[in-house]
Amino acid sequence: MKEQIVVVSIKLFEKKGFSSTSIQDIVDKIGVTKGTFYYYFKTKEQLLMDIHYNYITYLLERQKRIFENKSLSPKEKLIKYIHLINNDIVEHGPSARVLYRELRNLSTKNMEEITQIRREIRKNVEEIIQEGIVQGDFKKSLKVDMVTFGIIGMTNWSYNWYDSDGELTPDELSTIYSDLILYGIVN
Amino acid sequence: MKEQIVVVSIKLFEKKGFSSTSIQDIVDKIGVTKGTFYYYFKTKEQLLMDIHYNYITYLLERQKRIFENKSLSPKEKLIKYIHLINNDIVEHGPSARVLYRELRNLSTKNMEEITQIRREIRKNVEEIIQEGIVQGDFKKSLKVDMVTFGIIGMTNWSYNWYDSDGELTPDELSTIYSDLILYGIVN
Repeated sequence: MKEQIVVVSIKLFEKKGFSSTSIQDIVDKIGVTKGTFYYYFKTKEQLLMDIHYNYITYLLERQKRIFENKSLSPKEKLIKYIHLINNDIVEHGPSARVLYRELRNLSTKNMEEITQIRREIRKNVEEIIQEGIVQGDFKKSLKVDMVTFGIIGMTNWSYNWYDSDGELTPDELSTIYSDLILYGIVN
Repeated sequence: MKEQIVVVSIKLFEKKGFSSTSIQDIVDKIGVTKGTFYYYFKTKEQLLMDIHYNYITYLLERQKRIFENKSLSPKEKLIKYIHLINNDIVEHGPSARVLYRELRNLSTKNMEEITQIRREIRKNVEEIIQEGIVQGDFKKSLKVDMVTFGIIGMTNWSYNWYDSDGELTPDELSTIYSDLILYGIVN
């Protein structure tokens, strides 16, 4: 039931926005009473936090699995991370869209917690770029923090437009993005 | 007065969100009556459309000025466009954030109009990439539409994090992003 509340809420939040969706809307959609909702969540904000927290910690966990794999080079890690994000957008696109749009509806404490995890994800990418510079794969001249923002921006933006019924699979898109990031567009 | 309503509303929408901001909140902040609001805007949605429309048409206009300049190469046009976006985020960051978060609060007709202009901006970037391929500056192998999404994603994402009080000016960031897009990170 908890899972069902979460699934229905993500859809409603994506469509109507967090503020315009009432707990009544959520329980009506499932066909249960408000009591059921309150059995699992104290408030609507707690539900939003739950959605954000699950989404972002699951992403961090899978990122770590890639980055801690000692058999991969920094370049391979970066490519795998790009594939992870693009595939994630297909699987969890609505959660991602809700996250980026509704972050300000979290309490200050919860927002700080989510921001902290997002920062950790970003710092992990920075480390991989740094590792690649040290090992001589990547250019010494790179401004690591800004390049990381660029890579994260490019990949995260996909949730705004990527259509899983479109022409390209997430893996095909990831290959295009990896080539762009690694080698640029100039002949 | 119209301008003042717009400026105050952008701030409120950015902070509290469109749905949670009432017309009363807006007029209270300026110290006028609701009648003043309704003199300029029929509805809160019309005000939101006004904000979106002004932001996006002004961006399109400046993009065109760069892209129609026959003395610039495709590479120079692309670099200038990246500078335009990053500088715009400093000047109009709140408008950009409100645009991307609150798009769904527009009427279907208005949303279609905004989407159409955003599509035009994207198609213009595609044309520049295509021009660069034809002229031999950019790789023949590029998938123009996807590379364009990548470039737009990277630059647009800045509104999520760029701090104009931070270490880098928008032009410095633009140079880093241009180098990344043109030449990649691999040594």
